[in-house]
Formats: sequence, structure tokens, C-alpha cells
Amino acid sequence: MAPSDVTEGEVTMSNRQIVLERRPVGAVDASTTRLVEGAGPTCGPGEALIKVGMLSIDPTIRTWMNDAPGYLAPIGIGEVIRSSGAGVVTESNLERYRVGDVVVGLTNWQEWVVADGAHPFQVVPTALGLDLATVMNVLGATGVTAYFGLLEVGAFASGDVVLVSGAAGATGSVVGQIAKARGAAKVVGIAGGAAKCAEVVEEYGFDECLDYHEGHLARRLHGACPEGVDLYFDNVGGEILDAALANLALYGRVALCGAISQYNTTERAGLANTSMLIVRRGRMQGFIILDYASRFPEAQAALAAMVHGGTLRHREHLVHGLERAPEALNMLFGGANHGKTLVVVDETVQLS
Amino acid sequence: MAPSDVTEGEVTMSNRQIVLERRPVGAVDASTTRLVEGAGPTCGPGEALIKVGMLSIDPTIRTWMNDAPGYLAPIGIGEVIRSSGAGVVTESNLERYRVGDVVVGLTNWQEWVVADGAHPFQVVPTALGLDLATVMNVLGATGVTAYFGLLEVGAFASGDVVLVSGAAGATGSVVGQIAKARGAAKVVGIAGGAAKCAEVVEEYGFDECLDYHEGHLARRLHGACPEGVDLYFDNVGGEILDAALANLALYGRVALCGAISQYNTTERAGLANTSMLIVRRGRMQGFIILDYASRFPEAQAALAAMVHGGTLRHREHLVHGLERAPEALNMLFGGANHGKTLVVVDETVQLS
Repeated sequence: MAPSDVTEGEVTMSNRQIVLERRPVGAVDASTTRLVEGAGPTCGPGEALIKVGMLSIDPTIRTWMNDAPGYLAPIGIGEVIRSSGAGVVTESNLERYRVGDVVVGLTNWQEWVVADGAHPFQVVPTALGLDLATVMNVLGATGVTAYFGLLEVGAFASGDVVLVSGAAGATGSVVGQIAKARGAAKVVGIAGGAAKCAEVVEEYGFDECLDYHEGHLARRLHGACPEGVDLYFDNVGGEILDAALANLALYGRVALCGAISQYNTTERAGLANTSMLIVRRGRMQGFIILDYASRFPEAQAALAAMVHGGTLRHREHLVHGLERAPEALNMLFGGANHGKTLVVVDETVQLS
Repeated sequence: MAPSDVTEGEVTMSNRQIVLERRPVGAVDASTTRLVEGAGPTCGPGEALIKVGMLSIDPTIRTWMNDAPGYLAPIGIGEVIRSSGAGVVTESNLERYRVGDVVVGLTNWQEWVVADGAHPFQVVPTALGLDLATVMNVLGATGVTAYFGLLEVGAFASGDVVLVSGAAGATGSVVGQIAKARGAAKVVGIAGGAAKCAEVVEEYGFDECLDYHEGHLARRLHGACPEGVDLYFDNVGGEILDAALANLALYGRVALCGAISQYNTTERAGLANTSMLIVRRGRMQGFIILDYASRFPEAQAALAAMVHGGTLRHREHLVHGLERAPEALNMLFGGANHGKTLVVVDETVQLS
């Protein structure tokens, strides 16, 4: 696509986009995506024009790059990378959006996006008293995933021993804090490296955190949870999931949120311990947060109250520049990020 | 233990038992168990004496021979092999049992057993109008496992596409017939060999049966269930479970009943497709039938009504002689049995 210009009032508007150039085998690299620049979209009848401010960088984006069956269709070659994000409405021919509204939804990796009936965006209430990065993290897919995964899929009950992998990550850190706030008997995290483990305990208030780099995880889990794990919130899959299954308590539940350890691999690790689900009468259940969309307001209200009440600590890792989105995605797999990874596309987009 | 004799009225009574001699590695063989003969037990206060008539040969017995954590303690070396069975009360110092009552419970692999408060047996109602082998099969652990596994753990709903492995087996054949009787959209079996597959379709009324010996199971399952499997009742684990996971429908359920393919192996097969539980929002849940003991009468009434109504076909494979119990157990793993395997210890024990 050759660059071209579109006049928006006095401003000449173009749209930079990151498109899928080639399906990655393993990690995303320079050949996976391409930055293209073209005409910005116009705002037709029944549409609203949104200037993208921030992108939410989630592991699931990597799964959409594969040509494999998933819960959403694969991203096509040449198509812009699918992603949630936030932006501000600059023009609107739809009653539900006013110019100046900050909205969240599937912005994709680009500078401008059009909302219409088929591609809805939610307006972020300005009365929240939270900045945009916090909203994108705690009230975005990350926070509501933690909330429904723990409480609904995992059927959390006060007194549970809760185990969380990816505990220093955006979702895992919230899972543990909700569990603590609601009366877990013990909350144990799993993370990679001593620094992250320290953060999980000191910053997020977990009772204990195991560094999976140290090995012998199943045995060490037994030490941390001698009576077994009532609820395991799994963000990683693979060997860590297997070690957790080996330590499941009677009637234990496993909420399968993601399998980040497997997304960059071409051969999946085999789980050897699923028969523990029989011995312990356990349940392992997967979920996709989109299934809970109608209940997001309930979760968002509870999470915002926790932030304001000081019982929910959170951390955002900001990466500046649309062109750095592929790099930011890779950070999720290398363990280089701390907290929720967000790409700032336009820093002027803020909640007033 | 040296043989010795005990006088019971005019009869000299001894007790033959099969004890665990050595923990098997892989299949049970001649060195695993030993037949011993000793004094028969006496009937003390608060006890009843039971003459064992029939043993239920279940795959789970093999798991109790391992020195590994399970839902019951491993059988100790030198201890009689744990097993359910049926017998007749010959003496009783307990009000709940009368001489002549036919009872079922953990008889273990022996000729005589004592019931007391800690080792209860259930009296089989004579009004059932069914013979003892049928009761041991359809109304025993086998039948109630099929019933609760399908309806409770699998949350069967009319219109479901149901897949059952071990479909020619005692449990699997009942699962499919209950599903058919309750309005499944389609019931597909998996069994080993053309003869068993024919039996599953012709005798048990499944819509289709796939022979797992033919390979490419995941692909053939897709052919049989193009819109996916709503409920998979798993008796086998391993590769067949993996193929079923690959074909799970949205919100599909997997009821994990057993993993017979893994019981004789020292290295467990790894499951590669558990992340399909995320993509399809699936649930995989294990169960142990003992957890439903308080509800057995409900299942037994429903199953007996199906037998009398002609909608539940069943088959028992009788092996004669206590000493052949180890051989009968091995049959479950080699696929040589058809239907429910029972060992006849004393053929005079019958429901009158």
C-alpha cells in the first residue's frame, strides 16, 4: 500500500499499521510483521472515528498469528494485527459516542480505527478516577480475566489454598490479590527468577512464591502446599501445569487461562498427570474472557473498588511507539516485562 | 500361613485367599500374587460371616497394586487383593443381615469375608427379578459409574453428541445406551477391533463405532462428529483421550472415569491437546464412584427399569475359580473380555 494523505479539517491524516507479513514459527521476529503507512480511514454514516492511544499486549495475540483453529479466526496474511486497545473519539456519526470519549475495544495495531455496529467499542467512564494505563490493565481484559477465572471458573471459596502461575504477570498478580482479599487460606505464586518472586511476595502480597527456574517444582509445591492445591489458576501450561496437577487437593479445580509456555513452540509438551483428576476428583476447565463480556461491569466495579481501597497493587510496563508492538509482544515470552505490557501509540490520549 | 481347619457346625472351613506377593511392573503375572490357604474367619459379636460367590473384576484393582498415591491406600504386600464382590450371609450377629441374604461389598479375593461396622455390605433386594451376574454388572459399580459419569460429571443433555471409549466394555456399553435412551443426537463408540465395534453398534445400539487399531483416530473422529463432541466419557486415557480433546465441541465436557491404557505402563503418555479446553471452553473432570454411594439406589432403580424394559443390553463374561482372578484381571488389559468380567468363586451363591 503506497502512502497517501487524507485531509481531516486542517490536518493531513495518514494511518500507520502493523500487518502480518509471514506466520511465525516460534518467536515473532522482524520477518513476521511489516509497518505500512496508508490513508487514514474516513468517518461514514453510522460510524465513529477513533484515534488510538494505547495497545494492550496480550499473549493471545501470538495464537492468532498461527494458521490453526482457535476461538477467533487466524489473522490473515496482510491483515493488521488484531489487538485490544484504547483511543479517543475524534468524529462521530453514532449516538453512543461523543467526540472526546475515551473508548476501549479491538483497535488493532494501528493509529486510527473506525467503530461501527459490527465493531463496537466501550466508553470508559471518566468518573473512575483512574488513569488510562490502570484502566487498560486492571479494568481491561487482564483484570476481568483474573476475576472471572478465579471466582467463576475456579469456583473460589474462602479457605482455599490457591496456586497461581505467571504470578508476577498482569493477570496472575491480580488473581492472587483477589484470592487474598476474599479469604484464601494461602496464596502461592510461581514465577521465573528471584526478582519476580520477591515482587510477587512483597508487592502483591502472596504468601510464598516458587521460582520455576530452580527445578523440582512438583516436590517444592508439595512443600508449599502439603495438603494440596484447592484451586490452580494456570497461565502457562506445560510442565508447570503438570506439577500442579500432581499436587491437586481432593476436589481441586484448575482454571485454564492460557498456556504461554506453549505458544511459541511447534511441539506441545505432553501432560503426564491428568489422571490425578480422577484420583482427586478434580476438574480442569478452560475459558475465554469474551464469554463473560455481559458481566464485565460487575468485575470492573469490584476491581476499581479494590484499587481505590488500596488492596489491589498493579504495575504497567509502557513501551512507547506503535512500531515497537512486535517487540513488546515478544517480551511476554522472554519474561522481560513486569506487570501489564502496554504500547503507547499516542500519549496525548488520556482520561481527563 | 500354614493351612489349618476351623469347624463351622459340621463343616470344616478353610479360607483360600489371593494375596499380593510382589508389586507388578507392567502386567500382572505369576509372580504378582500367591494363593494361600488358611483358617476361615469366625463370626464374632457385631459381625456377620459371608461366603463369597462372585468377584467383580475391575481395572481399578490394578492401580491398587502400585505403591503410589491413589484414592485408596495401596494394597500391602502379603495382603489379600482388594475387590468388590457378592456373597451370601451364613452367620450373623448384626441386625441388618439375616442368614441367606445376598450382599455386595468389598469381599476381596477370597472365599470368606467378615462384615462389621467398618466393613459394611449392602443387601441385594430379592424382588429385583434379576440374576446375580446381572446385578453385579448393571447394578454394581459398573452400572452406577456409567450412570453418574454420564449424567452428573458429564452433565449430559438431550441433543448432545456423545463419544465413549471402551465402548464394548462393561461401563462404556451402558454409558452409550443411557445416552441413546435419553435423547443423544448421536452416540459414537471407540473400541479395539472389528468384532467389538460390530458388537457396539449391533448389540448396544450405538450409531457408530471406531476401531482405534486403525489409526488416525483424531481425523476419523472429525468425520464421525463433524460439529465436535459435546460429551466424551473416557475409560482409557492416553492417545484416545488426546484425539477426543482435539474434537471437543464448544463447551464440551470430558468425564474421566479411568485410564486403562496407562495402568500397565511405567511411563505415562503425555496429553498434547489439553489447551483445546481453553479454545473450546471445555471442562475435564475426574470422578470416583464411591463419592456417589449415597445416591446408588436412584441409579440402580433407573438401570433395573431399563433392563426390564429391554433398553439396556448387557453381557457378563464369567471366569470360574478364585485362582483364575489374576488371569481375569489381565483380560481387561488385553482386550480378551467381552462385557463385564466376573469371577465365580462359588456358583451356589445365587439370588433366589
